This record gives sequence, structure tokens and C-alpha cells, in this order.
Amino acid sequence: MKKKTPPERSPWYETPPPAGSYRALFKWGAPDEYKHPSDRLVALMRETFGLGDGDLAEPPDLGLDLIPDDRPPGLEARHLAWFEELVGEENLGRDTYSRLATSYGKTMIDLLRLRHRIVEHLPDLVVHPRGREDVVAIVAHCHTHRIPVYVFGGGSSVTRGTECVKGGITLDMRTHMNRVLEIGEVNQTVRCEPGIYGPALEAIINSASRTHQTAHDYTCGHFPQSFEFSCVGGWVVTRGAGQNSTSYGKIEHLVLCQEYVTPRDILRTTAHPARATGPDIDQILMGSEGAFGVLVSVTLKIFRHTPDTRQRFSFVFRSWPEALAAYREVMQSECGRPSVFRLSDPEETAVGFKLYGIEGTTIDRIMSVRGYKPQERCLLLGSADGHKRYAKLVAKNVKAVCGRHGAMNATSYGVKMWEHGRYRDPYLRDALGDHGILIDTLECAVNWEQLPDVHTTVGAYLKRRPGTIAMTHISHAYPQGCNLYFIFIARMELGEFIPFHAGLVETIISSGAALSHHHGIGKMLAPWLPRSLGAEGMALLKALKAHFDPHGIMNPGGTLALDLDDGDPPPAP
Amino acid sequence: MKKKTPPERSPWYETPPPAGSYRALFKWGAPDEYKHPSDRLVALMRETFGLGDGDLAEPPDLGLDLIPDDRPPGLEARHLAWFEELVGEENLGRDTYSRLATSYGKTMIDLLRLRHRIVEHLPDLVVHPRGREDVVAIVAHCHTHRIPVYVFGGGSSVTRGTECVKGGITLDMRTHMNRVLEIGEVNQTVRCEPGIYGPALEAIINSASRTHQTAHDYTCGHFPQSFEFSCVGGWVVTRGAGQNSTSYGKIEHLVLCQEYVTPRDILRTTAHPARATGPDIDQILMGSEGAFGVLVSVTLKIFRHTPDTRQRFSFVFRSWPEALAAYREVMQSECGRPSVFRLSDPEETAVGFKLYGIEGTTIDRIMSVRGYKPQERCLLLGSADGHKRYAKLVAKNVKAVCGRHGAMNATSYGVKMWEHGRYRDPYLRDALGDHGILIDTLECAVNWEQLPDVHTTVGAYLKRRPGTIAMTHISHAYPQGCNLYFIFIARMELGEFIPFHAGLVETIISSGAALSHHHGIGKMLAPWLPRSLGAEGMALLKALKAHFDPHGIMNPGGTLALDLDDGDPPPAP
Repeated sequence: MKKKTPPERSPWYETPPPAGSYRALFKWGAPDEYKHPSDRLVALMRETFGLGDGDLAEPPDLGLDLIPDDRPPGLEARHLAWFEELVGEENLGRDTYSRLATSYGKTMIDLLRLRHRIVEHLPDLVVHPRGREDVVAIVAHCHTHRIPVYVFGGGSSVTRGTECVKGGITLDMRTHMNRVLEIGEVNQTVRCEPGIYGPALEAIINSASRTHQTAHDYTCGHFPQSFEFSCVGGWVVTRGAGQNSTSYGKIEHLVLCQEYVTPRDILRTTAHPARATGPDIDQILMGSEGAFGVLVSVTLKIFRHTPDTRQRFSFVFRSWPEALAAYREVMQSECGRPSVFRLSDPEETAVGFKLYGIEGTTIDRIMSVRGYKPQERCLLLGSADGHKRYAKLVAKNVKAVCGRHGAMNATSYGVKMWEHGRYRDPYLRDALGDHGILIDTLECAVNWEQLPDVHTTVGAYLKRRPGTIAMTHISHAYPQGCNLYFIFIARMELGEFIPFHAGLVETIISSGAALSHHHGIGKMLAPWLPRSLGAEGMALLKALKAHFDPHGIMNPGGTLALDLDDGDPPPAP
Repeated sequence: MKKKTPPERSPWYETPPPAGSYRALFKWGAPDEYKHPSDRLVALMRETFGLGDGDLAEPPDLGLDLIPDDRPPGLEARHLAWFEELVGEENLGRDTYSRLATSYGKTMIDLLRLRHRIVEHLPDLVVHPRGREDVVAIVAHCHTHRIPVYVFGGGSSVTRGTECVKGGITLDMRTHMNRVLEIGEVNQTVRCEPGIYGPALEAIINSASRTHQTAHDYTCGHFPQSFEFSCVGGWVVTRGAGQNSTSYGKIEHLVLCQEYVTPRDILRTTAHPARATGPDIDQILMGSEGAFGVLVSVTLKIFRHTPDTRQRFSFVFRSWPEALAAYREVMQSECGRPSVFRLSDPEETAVGFKLYGIEGTTIDRIMSVRGYKPQERCLLLGSADGHKRYAKLVAKNVKAVCGRHGAMNATSYGVKMWEHGRYRDPYLRDALGDHGILIDTLECAVNWEQLPDVHTTVGAYLKRRPGTIAMTHISHAYPQGCNLYFIFIARMELGEFIPFHAGLVETIISSGAALSHHHGIGKMLAPWLPRSLGAEGMALLKALKAHFDPHGIMNPGGTLALDLDDGDPPPAP
């Protein structure tokens, strides 16, 4: 172990932000939690960004000042009165902070705007519906009076999904519509309201045998990085994916049926495991991102909760092509599927080895001598869930396949570390952001054939910018392909970020990848959606929009590019 | 073994039907193949139907006479000329027989109409498009001139899916558009045209290692009972399921991307394994049953072809509830999935045991003594595919679960017999039909909670009719539910069949089941679709129809109930 030099004075801010401050909004997660970069990451950044001693001293601006309450709602008094009459004053939010808090999400642009005190695109009113009937009345009223309706859940969108570009109202689903309505043991399902957070849902079904007298305990199988601070409704309407999706599936594989309140009427699908009754209506509603209607309840498939059967593994490959070949082989070998299954490219592996203190150690030298060289080697880690025998079989198959592709076994230690910190990385954004350093991600989906080219092309784009740490991993796999998750860390101002980010999206879409694997489209990626879907695909989405929401009141202002050609350019900060 | 009395003279007709005859159309499959009822089935029918000696003598009417060529096409001469100009006379079918042959399918109503010489709903012209460009030109021409367009593949529809209710033209996709376009080894996909038959596709990918120098041979994993005489296009647009769907999935799980020619334009989806780019367009097109456009190519996911790894099993349970509990447990135990997985109810088990000569034997008596009693016991049979270790694990788990639910192991013999005859049952319809006996099926999808009630209610409906053999099995399973497949055998005339069949559908839909699991809707089930989907679901389908096909030329006359309220009652014979 190297000796650490104790920092003279921590440049990292740990105090919970003042209520009502800019920081309270841009900070991730729990007010009193944080994650600071390790000394090794600091060293890497100093080296890559060419930072001087003064660059990581006291943060210049922490955003601790309060957001002024200076934006009176633009909604007509008669409508304000109508909402007050319906839900009561206690279920309305009129002040600037509350309204901004349910408009911005966690897109990098949101964080940067808040650090720059740019307050825009507020809803006129936040409404906390007490249940389905409130939503029905509200959507009908807004439809009649052409009032924009937005929907807010956990607010973890990284695509400007919830931003109230056109004012109007936003529905905060977390306050009341956050209940588990039914656990169906025979069908192995849970029916819940959209505003329930991941941990609340998981806690209830994890203990179903005690609280609901079921024969088993259950898990939802859906664990996105935002798990602790995202809601079921957001998972569904954006087509999210959890980190264990390789065995459990994306959310669209986990939904059995749903109910939406649309400006037209209520649309409810039936709880059947499969159908041949025309187009799949559930698959039309999932991914609608609030542009067709409001999700008011959803029935999810659930799984037996068997944490003790988990099998963990990690392997290091000599090269990216060998690692890809093994990764694909696992998915095509018809021998079950891992649950978590993550492959880091050489850059991400190098950064990881550096941050975990492996670089420069004896282990590192032994690996190099054996041909697992820095900037070439790749780290695979994952786990298998399910029946004990099944999980063991999957892990055994992974081991055999990796062995055939020249990998060395790297034990289960790294997986446990990864599991321990799996939800904590977003806190790092705040610490780095305090010093003008951005860490941002973008993801896409590819088939195996296009993967190498997309990876190379997008990586080259990121690396072309001097002083940029760029890395990529795969975290969701299928027999026909996978996602690609790009991460970059750079010292960058808002003015540079916007075109750099646009160029990145442009590179992804030009390379032939699908524009999004699980983050959705929102207003951020909307300008590229027509190219991703083609003119006819886009026309189809617009026909659906016209059907469900003829007055264009649902999540207007760019969502899914549905109203981009109505004279509204995508909103830009 | 009982002694068989040799029949004096076989009442079963074996001669290939004359070309151009009614029989040539209603007969299933290959002209020179047939399946006659065994002596034991004959005995059962004699008993159940109270048949006298004369009832199964010479068939009264075999439909050997030729269909008269007496229906001149109603299409205007200028249009006939246009089609001739486009594809050449050799690619047109103008005679009555050719036109009827590409309108009727294999719905019981089709067979009965042909036996009664009811010739109706002919297209004016059969067109054999030579490729995608012909389809583009044809759909554009028909759109402009409001000419109905139907699409014909294998013609195995059991829902009146291809019937040309409104005249116009039908496209016979088998003649030219029947090629494998590409085998994508890295992506593990095959791209093909819609008119390719199951065996042709399977033969090509089964031998890919020799013919395409791939590392593996592949299988499509999709084996409906109609496999030998159905086409890929029909599988896709009706949301079909193969008998091995419990592991491989229904066709909608097997499609990676597609291309359709619609009256609007061409709609092509992209070859990505997953997406979060709005509603799933593939899932809108699948199940469209020719009402939105013409499928011109499809990319299917394929699987390693490993016939040697198959594990077969069968078990007998003491009761239907015990069998159901075990069946569900296998699907929920997170230990992989069987490929074929079929559970017969007590009635089907009893008929099966009778037909296979088990009834009355020593084995039968031993089973009864051990508590596996006739009319109570249930037969489960199936197999597991995939990696050798995976298949073994799945079979081992099935065995353990069945053991815990009191089942006795019935070896793999029955499964092999079932596999051997898996595509042959449809031939039996013809032999029985020659004697006025109908064997027909209807299927639906249920979740586990509703299953017992749907099974009881529908079974009671069938058994209420005197002289009816009724039985049920489950053949496609999911963690949340399964299909139910109802079979009835009865001596019944067309006049009785129509209301009896309607009552059966009515009973299924009233019981809460999904109207169809894998047969699609066609024109037969269309009148019930609005109740199955609800008013808003139906309105959504109509909005999609209006988008793709504003003039209503694609498969008009009832398909998916899209134009049932345009003043057109569903066509009835």
C-alpha cells in the first residue's frame, strides 16, 4: 500500500444544503450524503486536466444561496381556484422553489443551469393529486382549457424529461400516489401507484411473507443506478433498465398491465401474460414519456427474492476483441443469463485499476507479464441470480467461456465492491461540479455487428478533446447485442458543454446506434429522434400523439420530438 | 393387448384429391398425406356420438368435384391491364380456383363452406409479387384507386385472416418472396422474406455451418402445429407461437426488426436489441394482420441448433389442482424454462390414455390403485433445449417440482411419440369431416389466478352439448400465466356449428381470458375484439389504421374489427 499524503484542508463540501437553495436542487439524493473523489482520482484529474494547486482549493461557488421566490404563477386566477377547490391548498405548490423542484431533473444541463442561477421553464402550479380520480378530473380540465400538464416522479431524468417548458401544471405523484395496491402471489405480481420510490416498493415485497403472508419474499428485479431516488412511474414511461436487466429484463419486459389517464379517456390494459389481439397496447404506452397521458397504476411482474443464491464473478481479458467475443458467447450459448453483466473497455478498466490502487502494484506487474497490459486489458464483472442451481450453472458457464477466451479469474471481490457502491456514483457529480469538473454519461444500444465501430467512433470523438477522461462499458446484454455506456470527465463550462454534448449525440446517431437504450428521449435527445426512427416512424408517433392528446397538452415542448415542428425549437439554456 | 377386429372396408379416404377440386382446397397439407382416426378413437366416437354401423361407412361426400371456373373478376379492365403490365401474365391468377385458394384458409368455417360448395369472397385477382418493389408499386396503385389488398402466405389461418371479403387483389407471397436474404452470424439473426415456409427456413439455418460457413448451425425456435404449411410472414403479423415457445418465446419475442409497405409509405425498424426511443414500433406492426401494410422482410433472432442436448420428460399427477400448482411452480422457480411444456386436463388425459391403449391395462390399474384415477389424473409432457447442462438442469428441476406435487414419472416415451406426430393432427380433421364429424380448437390466454375458473366455465359450456368430446391443455407458459387450448369433437352441421362456436367465444371472453393467445383475431374473432380491448383500446387501433391506411384498403371487411362499424357486419357464411 502506498502512503497517503493527508490533504491540508478538504476542498470537498459535505454539509447538507440549506433548504430552498440552488444546491438543494442540483445535489443528488439524500441531503446528508456525499461522495468525494478518492486521492487517486484527484491525482488522475490533476494529471489529465493539468490542474495547478489552486484549482482544487476551496470551491468557488457552492450554490448555497436561496432561490428567490419571485416568479408569480402565470395561470389565470379561475384555474388556480379550480385546482384549490379540487385538491385543497395543502396539495398545491405555488412558490418558485417548489415549482422549479418539480421541473428540472438531474440532466447535466439542469445542474449547470442551477449553478448559473438560470431559473426557467417553471410550471405555474404544482399539484399533488390524492389519487386516480383527481388525475381524471385534472386531465379533463386541462384538456378543456388547454393547460399544459407535466408529470413528476423521482426527478432523476437525465434527458430533461420532466421540464415544464410550456408552463401549466405539474403533477407530483410522490406525495399521495405512492402505494402498493396489491401483491398477487399466484400471478407473482405487484400492482402499485406510479409515485412509489424503488426502495419503498422493494422493502414491501422483500418482506411479503411476513406482511402479506405469502409463501415467498419477492424482488422487483429492477435496480437502476437511480433506484433510491426514482419512482416506478418514471421507470415505466421512459423504458428504463436496471443494472440486473440481463436476467430480469428492462422495465418493458417487467410490466404486465397499466392504466393511463389520457385527454381522450382512461386506457387500461388487461393482466394477461401474452396475447395475439392486434398491436401490443402496453408497448405503445411504455415509452410515451408523459406525452400521451398520466400513468396512474401499473402491475409489475416480480421474482422470488433469493439474495443468498447470488453467484459473483469477475475476469480480466487481454484485449477488447477477446472480451467482446466472450461476452457475446455467454449471451448466445443458451445456458441461462447472468443478472449483472458489465464489461469495461480498456480505458475504463485502466481508470478503474488506477482508482482501486491496482496500478503499479505487484499484481499489476504480474498481469502485464502475463499479457494483460494496461490500456489493452478489460474487466468483466457480474453476478447470477435465481434458483441456487441455476445461478451456479450460469456462473460456471461464464467461467468456462471466459477461460476459453484467455481471461484470468479476478475473484468476486470487485463485484462485492461494485455492489456496495452501486448507487453512490451520482453523488460524485456534485463534488466535481463544485470545481467546474463535469462527469456526464450517454448511452445507446447496438447490435453485435455494429458494436466495435460505434465504440471506436464515439470513443474517438470524446478523446479528440484534450484533457478529457473517456471510458465506456457495456451493462445490459441480449443475444443480439447490448447497450454502450459512455462516460466522460472534463473541465468544461456550460458554453462548451452544450455543443460538445450535441456533437456526442450526433456521433452516436451517425454511427448507427439506437439513440437510447434506457434513459429515454425527453426534450434533450428529441431533436435527433426523427433521424433515429425515420420519417415514417416519427409520423407514427405523431399520429399516436394526435389520438391521445389532440390539444397537445401532455408534456409539451419537445418530448419525443412530437411538437418540435410546431414552431418550437427544442428549449436550450 | 386386445385383439383388433379388422375393418371390413376402410371408410377413410386416402387418395390425393383431384387438382382444382373442393377437396384439394379444404384438405390439410400435402396431397398424399392423411391421418385416420385409430380404432380406439373410432370406438370412443361411436360411444360418445351414439353412432350406428351405417354412420361410419362410405363417406357421403368427399368434395372431389372441380370448383367451376364461373366467377369473372370484377376488377376494371384498366386495372387488370395495369397489373399485367407490372408483373406479367405469368404472375397473375384469374381463375376461380386460384382466387378461392388464396382467400379461404383453414378455419373450420372455410372447410365447411367448401364441403357445402359455398364459394364467396374471392379476390378479383391473385398477384404474385416478384419482390419488394412490386409490392411498393401495387400498394401505391391500390391506395390511389381504392382497390382492396389482401396478403396470402401459407393459408393456415384459423381465424379467416386472409379472406378477401371485399374483393380486390390478394398478394401470394410464397411464389417469389420466399428467400433467406441474410444470415447474420455475429448478431445471430436471419433476414428473410415473408413467403418462406417454416421447413425451408429451418433447413437453411440448420445447415448454415456447411452452406454459409458459420461456426454453428441454427434453429428458428418457432414450431407451430402448422409449421410445415405456414409462412414466416403469417407467424409475424398474427403474433403466432410455436410449440417450443415456453423457452424460445412467441414470434413477437423472436422478431428483431421488420419492413412494411403501407399505403402511407415504407416503414422500416432498426436492428437493435432494445431501445428507449418512445413506443415500440415493432410491437405496433406485429399483430396488424395485414390491416396496416404488407410485411416485405423480417429479421428473426435465431438460436444454436443442438438437437442432441434435448431432455424429455413426462409426469402424471393425481389431480388438476396439483398439476397446475406444479406447472406454475416450474415457471416461477427461476430455474430456466422448458421448451415444450404441455399439461393436459383430466378429460384430455383420459382421451389420450384411451387412444394410446393405456386404458384398461395393468399399468392403468396400478395407477388407479396408487391414486392416479381416470377423469382426475393429468398428463404433463415436455422437453428442455439449449446448452446440455442447461437442458439437464431444467429437466431436473421439473422432475423435482413434479415429485413434490405427488406426480409419478412417466418416462420420455410419450414425448417422443408426441414429437413424432406433432404436425399430423390437422390431417385428422379431413378424415373426420368426411363423416360429418368436426374437430375444432379455440385458444385464449389467462393469468394463473383466473385459470381455474376459465377452464371450468369453458369446459362446462362444451360439455353442456350432448355427444361432445371436450378437452383442454396448456401449451405455452409464462411466470404470470399461460394459454388454454380447448378442443372439441362433435357431430355437427354448419348450421349448428356457427352459433355453437359463437357461444364458445362468448364464454371465453366473458370469463375474462384474453381473446387469443397466438391464433390472432382475423375476421372470425373480430366481433369480440372491442370487448377484449375495451373502447379506448379499440379506438387506439382504429387511429393506427387511419394513420397507415386512410382509405381502408388493407385487409378490409372485419380484420381486427377495424371497419366493423362502417356498416359492414362481420361476414358470415
